[in-house]
Amino acid sequence: MALAGPNRVQLHEVAPRDGLQIEPVFVPTEQKIAWIDRLSETGIAKIEATSFVSPKHVPALADGEAVLRGIRRRPGVRYAALIPNAKGAERAAQAKPDEVNVVISASETHNRSNLRMPRSGSFAALADIRRALEGSGVDLTSSVATSFGCPFEGRVDPNVVLDQVQRLLDEGCVAVTLADTTGMANPRQVAELTEAVLARHPGLVLTLHFHNTRGVGLANVMAGWQAGATRFDAALGGLGGCPFAPGATGNVCSEDVVSMFEEMGVSTGVDLDALLAVSKDLPGMIGHDVPGQVRAAGRPMTLHQPPDYARAA
Amino acid sequence: MALAGPNRVQLHEVAPRDGLQIEPVFVPTEQKIAWIDRLSETGIAKIEATSFVSPKHVPALADGEAVLRGIRRRPGVRYAALIPNAKGAERAAQAKPDEVNVVISASETHNRSNLRMPRSGSFAALADIRRALEGSGVDLTSSVATSFGCPFEGRVDPNVVLDQVQRLLDEGCVAVTLADTTGMANPRQVAELTEAVLARHPGLVLTLHFHNTRGVGLANVMAGWQAGATRFDAALGGLGGCPFAPGATGNVCSEDVVSMFEEMGVSTGVDLDALLAVSKDLPGMIGHDVPGQVRAAGRPMTLHQPPDYARAA
Repeated sequence: MALAGPNRVQLHEVAPRDGLQIEPVFVPTEQKIAWIDRLSETGIAKIEATSFVSPKHVPALADGEAVLRGIRRRPGVRYAALIPNAKGAERAAQAKPDEVNVVISASETHNRSNLRMPRSGSFAALADIRRALEGSGVDLTSSVATSFGCPFEGRVDPNVVLDQVQRLLDEGCVAVTLADTTGMANPRQVAELTEAVLARHPGLVLTLHFHNTRGVGLANVMAGWQAGATRFDAALGGLGGCPFAPGATGNVCSEDVVSMFEEMGVSTGVDLDALLAVSKDLPGMIGHDVPGQVRAAGRPMTLHQPPDYARAA
Repeated sequence: MALAGPNRVQLHEVAPRDGLQIEPVFVPTEQKIAWIDRLSETGIAKIEATSFVSPKHVPALADGEAVLRGIRRRPGVRYAALIPNAKGAERAAQAKPDEVNVVISASETHNRSNLRMPRSGSFAALADIRRALEGSGVDLTSSVATSFGCPFEGRVDPNVVLDQVQRLLDEGCVAVTLADTTGMANPRQVAELTEAVLARHPGLVLTLHFHNTRGVGLANVMAGWQAGATRFDAALGGLGGCPFAPGATGNVCSEDVVSMFEEMGVSTGVDLDALLAVSKDLPGMIGHDVPGQVRAAGRPMTLHQPPDYARAA
């Protein structure tokens, strides 16, 4: 067999947070709740449902508490919220997502741009966050932004990423995500870094997060899978982007990722038709089309009628 | 090393034929010639420059002879023309591309739809074509359309593809292309079929031709490369499509394929900046935007200025 990798993978849906956060429209809370509830029924393993950041900075997600209160928590699905600091952790300790996700960039300049503090400040905040979560039952996870490249600094030293993963685990994170925040990764690099991280931490709950900025998103998913990764972030319809990388398209598209794996015989646990049905209503909710391709072209084995002249006699 | 494959690959540019053939505008002959001449300077190994089909069926390419007469044939670049039958071969024998490409589908229904004859008729035509080319110095090559799936019949038996490759070589073809005509392939299937074909014909001049219909185009290129393929069709800007698969996007995008390989350290021989410069003028020529992503987002290592507040003190 030419291509080998794990027989099962998990999809983590990030559109409700990573997708909506840059949308100019405010999707009404009830609509967000209904949307997340529909996503919960598709077999997705984890949903990043909202964030607890300043409503001034991300008005689209100002209703984090109401969203988490309103959704039906489906058993077996994990619900995550992004938080930037101890204040967010205090909100999360009340609202009780299953886990919070704290983003720290491997690149100093990206961290300062995205979070307005140096990486050292972010690591200090992480310790505050851990303390704020103590006894809440909410798990701490972290994403290594710009793991594969920084739009300001360029290449990122893999050793910086490896050191950051170690530090995150030392700080009590139960899972780590390597994020290609602005779509700079290539498949060889993905395979090498994924292998290096898994070699150092064989039991690590590792997720890979790719953007399709240069069209290589699914090739990077494939490369990570071949290197042993089993958890992948993706956004319904391919929503998302990065304010610091003009022209960037969004996250890899959930439906396209699921379709690829299912066609390969790799189980995702996701009902693709159900997911496509949710995706169908996405443009109406946000007011514009989205880049996902299976939703436009149909599943690969969707058959068409041949022209009359081509039918066998 | 996690991902292994050949150190060098070749890009075959198909936009002047596979891209333009479905465009509703007629690009003036002089403009086509100037375009192909610019492409010839980028380091591309082969250009499918036109076709010799009925001008009634493909009016966009009615000027095949004039195009081949007008272009500057750059040494080291091969120029190809698609032909459907012996009449096309007679035209080619006069116009003298380096090679002609004859398409025959692995699927009976697709062959009838696309070429209005059964596969047996296409194989008979191939023998006529070979005779018409004798002594002309024009090489005969063939593409196996729907190698990875048929939009009418669904899955295609790999043994049908293997038998067709054998038959094409027996008929005197010097090169064979496996084409995922409507974007139904998945990476595992690509790796398995590519390995099977190369195992049976180790010296075969094999090209892979993918469409990005379901977003998996570059993942399929990666899988083919890992299986040993070194030649890939692609279209500038991702032009192209298939009239029988509604919603289908086009061929894999030349710039995106080159960018992926170059980022991985795999040599393509192509000057990506020169190719992007040609791509920049493409929407003006055909009157609409194109799906290529590196042209929109910039090369992965195109750096941006951080916000003022993020600069180190």
